[in-house]
Amino acid sequence: MKNSKSHTNDCLSASREITVRFSEVDSMNIVWHGSYPLYFEDAREAFGHKYGIDYLTIFGNGYYAPLVDLSFQYKRPIVYGMTIRVDIFYRPTDAAKIVFDYEIYNVADGQLMATGSSTQVFLDKQYQLVWTNPDFYQEWKVKQGIN
Amino acid sequence: MKNSKSHTNDCLSASREITVRFSEVDSMNIVWHGSYPLYFEDAREAFGHKYGIDYLTIFGNGYYAPLVDLSFQYKRPIVYGMTIRVDIFYRPTDAAKIVFDYEIYNVADGQLMATGSSTQVFLDKQYQLVWTNPDFYQEWKVKQGIN
Amino acid sequence: MKNSKSHTNDCLSASREITVRFSEVDSMNIVWHGSYPLYFEDAREAFGHKYGIDYLTIFGNGYYAPLVDLSFQYKRPIVYGMTIRVDIFYRPTDAAKIVFDYEIYNVADGQLMATGSSTQVFLDKQYQLVWTNPDFYQEWKVKQGIN
Amino acid sequence: MKNSKSHTNDCLSASREITVRFSEVDSMNIVWHGSYPLYFEDAREAFGHKYGIDYLTIFGNGYYAPLVDLSFQYKRPIVYGMTIRVDIFYRPTDAAKIVFDYEIYNVADGQLMATGSSTQVFLDKQYQLVWTNPDFYQEWKVKQGIN
Repeated sequence: MKNSKSHTNDCLSASREITVRFSEVDSMNIVWHGSYPLYFEDAREAFGHKYGIDYLTIFGNGYYAPLVDLSFQYKRPIVYGMTIRVDIFYRPTDAAKIVFDYEIYNVADGQLMATGSSTQVFLDKQYQLVWTNPDFYQEWKVKQGIN
Repeated sequence: MKNSKSHTNDCLSASREITVRFSEVDSMNIVWHGSYPLYFEDAREAFGHKYGIDYLTIFGNGYYAPLVDLSFQYKRPIVYGMTIRVDIFYRPTDAAKIVFDYEIYNVADGQLMATGSSTQVFLDKQYQLVWTNPDFYQEWKVKQGIN
Repeated sequence: MKNSKSHTNDCLSASREITVRFSEVDSMNIVWHGSYPLYFEDAREAFGHKYGIDYLTIFGNGYYAPLVDLSFQYKRPIVYGMTIRVDIFYRPTDAAKIVFDYEIYNVADGQLMATGSSTQVFLDKQYQLVWTNPDFYQEWKVKQGIN
Repeated sequence: MKNSKSHTNDCLSASREITVRFSEVDSMNIVWHGSYPLYFEDAREAFGHKYGIDYLTIFGNGYYAPLVDLSFQYKRPIVYGMTIRVDIFYRPTDAAKIVFDYEIYNVADGQLMATGSSTQVFLDKQYQLVWTNPDFYQEWKVKQGIN
């Protein structure tokens, strides 16, 4: 699992605050685990907008970037009405992939509620897997100082 | 990741067939990854009903069994209208946990579409983590020939 | 609201049985209202497969049929583990629309749990509203004895 | 259907801006209709927080307020990446109900994208319908100048 100590100052990251919806909790009043992928998606969108690598940019360049691997680990119960902050960290890799780590915190007391990670690959418009970084993504990485 | 070869004949398992809903595919006509937790949940319910270890039984015995860890790995695109079969395998462990592995197949051609695993722990009615197997679960394991 | 007495014997209809998922109930252990559109969708798919008017057929003929109007009325609480039957009834209309009525029953005791209705229109591939019935749909209506 | 002209200046109302998630659009890149109940729920939460009538307040007073009737009408397609504003309007009624009207606008150009309405009733902790306004709700109405 991701070690948060590795998030050095020069790590690309973003944050999104979310207030838990009534529809997201289960009969124990705890967020249903199927909501984590949604929270992570919200964080990816915040990251994409901040760094110019959102879904529309990816589509506009002729690619689709589906998630092929996702994991999350529950630490403490997230309950109805709680405001959480989802931190997303870009994890550099040489492969033609986009890898993110996630940390969810309770805004009120700063406690870590959950962690996770996701991996995306690139498909072209014929749904074929792309084995090397698309040009637009390689240029984006260079621009961000990642190589 | 789960090696399917380890699913020996005496492994407790169940299956659920699911026809992909229109609402579960994204703008590429591929199942949105956030649907995998739902498919896995359907398989757990099939397992629970088959072996007498469903949520209502767990609740009735005074416990709640939230997922604390989930992962899935995409292999091939699941699309609208496809009928898939979700196989669920019980993975024995000494810890006070319920661990499952999952495999999703395309019914039409038998291809493996995705894999995954999940871990559940036990909380009592005061939301406290239980460190040893609850009696009802230990009895269930013995009855199933698991030790 | 739909009067169930109007469902005469020659009404086109279909049914789908659904067992309520744990993820579909809220903190009162009652199905969250946002699940009704999903149950209605399941019934539409059952209808579409039975009568040859499913989404893929509509797409294949060059159209998209989004819902433009939906309503539902709660009668009794649907709870976790309950098996429900969603009955769907085709309501003939001269307009270029597909209108359905829905009734949800508790399978165990036959009680009516909820009702609803939906209206779909036709868009062409340029997302333009179609004001007269597409040929394929008009032919389908004739074939079903609807005029 | 709700006539927006009736929303006079002294109408209790609230607004919530929402950016459409990738997971909320279907294979036509249009928001799936099952997302409208979620958008309306977001607006109700905004209203509840603004006027002190949120779910936790209702629960704290010993009641549950499930939706028993919901309808929505599509006007124009809401697409991925669009920022929408959901306006919610409290519709006074003498019955022991909470009735809201909704209007969804495209923030960029102010166009009306969808409308809707919802009705909630009160259940006590034994899940029994309450036929007269609970005291806390009657007091809230008086405080808001509604009666």
